[in-house]
Amino acid sequence: MSIYKLEGTSGNARAGIVSTAHGDIQTPIFMPVGTRGAIKTLDTSHIESMGAQIILGNTYHLYLRPGHELIEKVGAAAGGGGLHGFMDWDGPILTDSGGFQVFSLSGLNKVTEEGVRFQSHIDGSYHMFTPEKSMEIQKALGSDIVMVFDECPALPATKEDLRKSMELTLRWAKRCKDYELKPHQNLFGIVQGGLHFDLRTECMQRLEELDFPGLALGGLSVGEKNEEMVNFLNDFTPTMPAGKPRYLMGVGKPLDVLNGIRAGIDMFDCVLPSRNARNGQVFTFDGPMNIKNERYKEDTKPIDAELNCPYTKRYTRAYLRHLFTVGEYTAGLLMTYHNLYFFLELTRRAREAILEGKFDVFYDSFYKRYTANQIN
Amino acid sequence: MSIYKLEGTSGNARAGIVSTAHGDIQTPIFMPVGTRGAIKTLDTSHIESMGAQIILGNTYHLYLRPGHELIEKVGAAAGGGGLHGFMDWDGPILTDSGGFQVFSLSGLNKVTEEGVRFQSHIDGSYHMFTPEKSMEIQKALGSDIVMVFDECPALPATKEDLRKSMELTLRWAKRCKDYELKPHQNLFGIVQGGLHFDLRTECMQRLEELDFPGLALGGLSVGEKNEEMVNFLNDFTPTMPAGKPRYLMGVGKPLDVLNGIRAGIDMFDCVLPSRNARNGQVFTFDGPMNIKNERYKEDTKPIDAELNCPYTKRYTRAYLRHLFTVGEYTAGLLMTYHNLYFFLELTRRAREAILEGKFDVFYDSFYKRYTANQIN
Repeated sequence: MSIYKLEGTSGNARAGIVSTAHGDIQTPIFMPVGTRGAIKTLDTSHIESMGAQIILGNTYHLYLRPGHELIEKVGAAAGGGGLHGFMDWDGPILTDSGGFQVFSLSGLNKVTEEGVRFQSHIDGSYHMFTPEKSMEIQKALGSDIVMVFDECPALPATKEDLRKSMELTLRWAKRCKDYELKPHQNLFGIVQGGLHFDLRTECMQRLEELDFPGLALGGLSVGEKNEEMVNFLNDFTPTMPAGKPRYLMGVGKPLDVLNGIRAGIDMFDCVLPSRNARNGQVFTFDGPMNIKNERYKEDTKPIDAELNCPYTKRYTRAYLRHLFTVGEYTAGLLMTYHNLYFFLELTRRAREAILEGKFDVFYDSFYKRYTANQIN
Repeated sequence: MSIYKLEGTSGNARAGIVSTAHGDIQTPIFMPVGTRGAIKTLDTSHIESMGAQIILGNTYHLYLRPGHELIEKVGAAAGGGGLHGFMDWDGPILTDSGGFQVFSLSGLNKVTEEGVRFQSHIDGSYHMFTPEKSMEIQKALGSDIVMVFDECPALPATKEDLRKSMELTLRWAKRCKDYELKPHQNLFGIVQGGLHFDLRTECMQRLEELDFPGLALGGLSVGEKNEEMVNFLNDFTPTMPAGKPRYLMGVGKPLDVLNGIRAGIDMFDCVLPSRNARNGQVFTFDGPMNIKNERYKEDTKPIDAELNCPYTKRYTRAYLRHLFTVGEYTAGLLMTYHNLYFFLELTRRAREAILEGKFDVFYDSFYKRYTANQIN
């Protein structure tokens, strides 16, 4: 039975519902990243109040600290099970496979047919992730959407290397599929193949033989030109199975999300809104703004009147700038909340426009205003 | 007209109401410290939801960054005026005089009859605080309770030095009194004199000639033995004017607050609950606990079931320990909230006991349980 229900389209853009044991997700949707069991600077009550419909957890980080067995045990005793119980979040959770962090964060890593041996970025200790180990961890975490363990090649890479990597990823995908997860968990396949339409198509077709309930696009926004990614998404996404959710991993900036939606992507995640908040960048419908800027020193407007974020609209830019300038954690909290609310609102408005059959109008209007970057 | 209304006593302990333009304060009360326009790790919505009745702002810090003129300007434009408008807090605010930070934080400081010349702890720039300057800043901040600018002698000190300091403080108090504040502001006098009953009494009587609407005890918990402070408070506090609020500055630990209430103190402030939270110490009715402790690793109980903090009770000790251990800001947020809620609840329960005429029973019960320190 499909977990995805298509509700409407506007061009290639789609509005739908992804059903999980912890609730329905209205798509397109942005998924805030709760790396180590919390969205940085926020607690679960914030996640709830901002209207997040699904959040991410990172298998690599949670495996290292506090450990998936501990999360399973504490989560079960606390009620809710696994990561849900551990952080007291009742909504849907997606966990990544740990693959991306193994390749990007850990020291020395060695890829074999069996899996990846790597050193912890915390204490240098040795660990081995295999497809089965990744499934074991994600099973313990109890996420609603589980990602297959894949190799993540950096771009640029030769087509031959990308093919080799894809073949390995496909063999690993099969091993993941053979692992028995909890009944409520849905395993998503990951389509690799760089910017090569033929490789991606082949990868997707062979994943389809394994019949995953959802498909993700991996290995994008990893070094290629933004235009290349957008063009690829426009070409490729519409060829993906219409009856399954489509998830673009680790993307991205507001315009990337907008472009992804136009191409037919349903789900997005990225640390950008929370990470940039901690560096002083906040997103508005008039483009990004740097709260550190001297021009906001006595600015009594809210960050973004158009956004009207219920949590942060009470504060002035001048106040936020002050808090950020003196180094108060509160600045990180407020700007993280604001940025995530902005991304959620972006996907909410996009969804509304799709259901009205007017996504192109929304796209043009958002794009024009955002890129004019006339924050006042 | 008095700003204080006595509602009941139990032994020397008092329950009352302090009236300000921004609302009434039910005493005894603990006042969370919002040093630089925010309680560290929290935002104003947290201050409201925890039921804080009055908060503190620090004149020294706000003068240096972002500057009192900016706060006055932005606060007025934002609505609410001064610090109230700046941080969007509608409840009562007390500001200190800047004196304590000038002596404890700044580099090189030089005391003359005129005031104190000091170097900023941020950039080494030179500044001068006089009684008039302190009043000017606190007037701009628009706090409901303004503190006189006093010299803060460190203990131990000779009686002769303490007298000299007291005489200076009294001359400065007069200059503060002569400064015209905003109509809604109440200027409190500060009783100095170390642990010398006679000096304190003289200081208080001479302050009384200036008829401040409230009196504070300064220069305690600055190096003397805890027992000495408690004994002094028991002896001295009951001699203070019954018709005015009594504020014990910068104190302290839960048992200090409890002892202060027993002696007849109405108002307390301290950075201890928020600072210690950021270091991993949380307060419970069964004594303080260190969340870093290995024994809480799989502990699925809330921090303190007895406290039943509405914001943090949903989280387990194991979860908080994890967040703290990996360095998530969220840990600081949750533990700060918890600790401040604990101090507010302590004063709430004390007040209830006083109004029932049973403060001694409450004191004994709290003291016994807290010092048994049997957290389980």
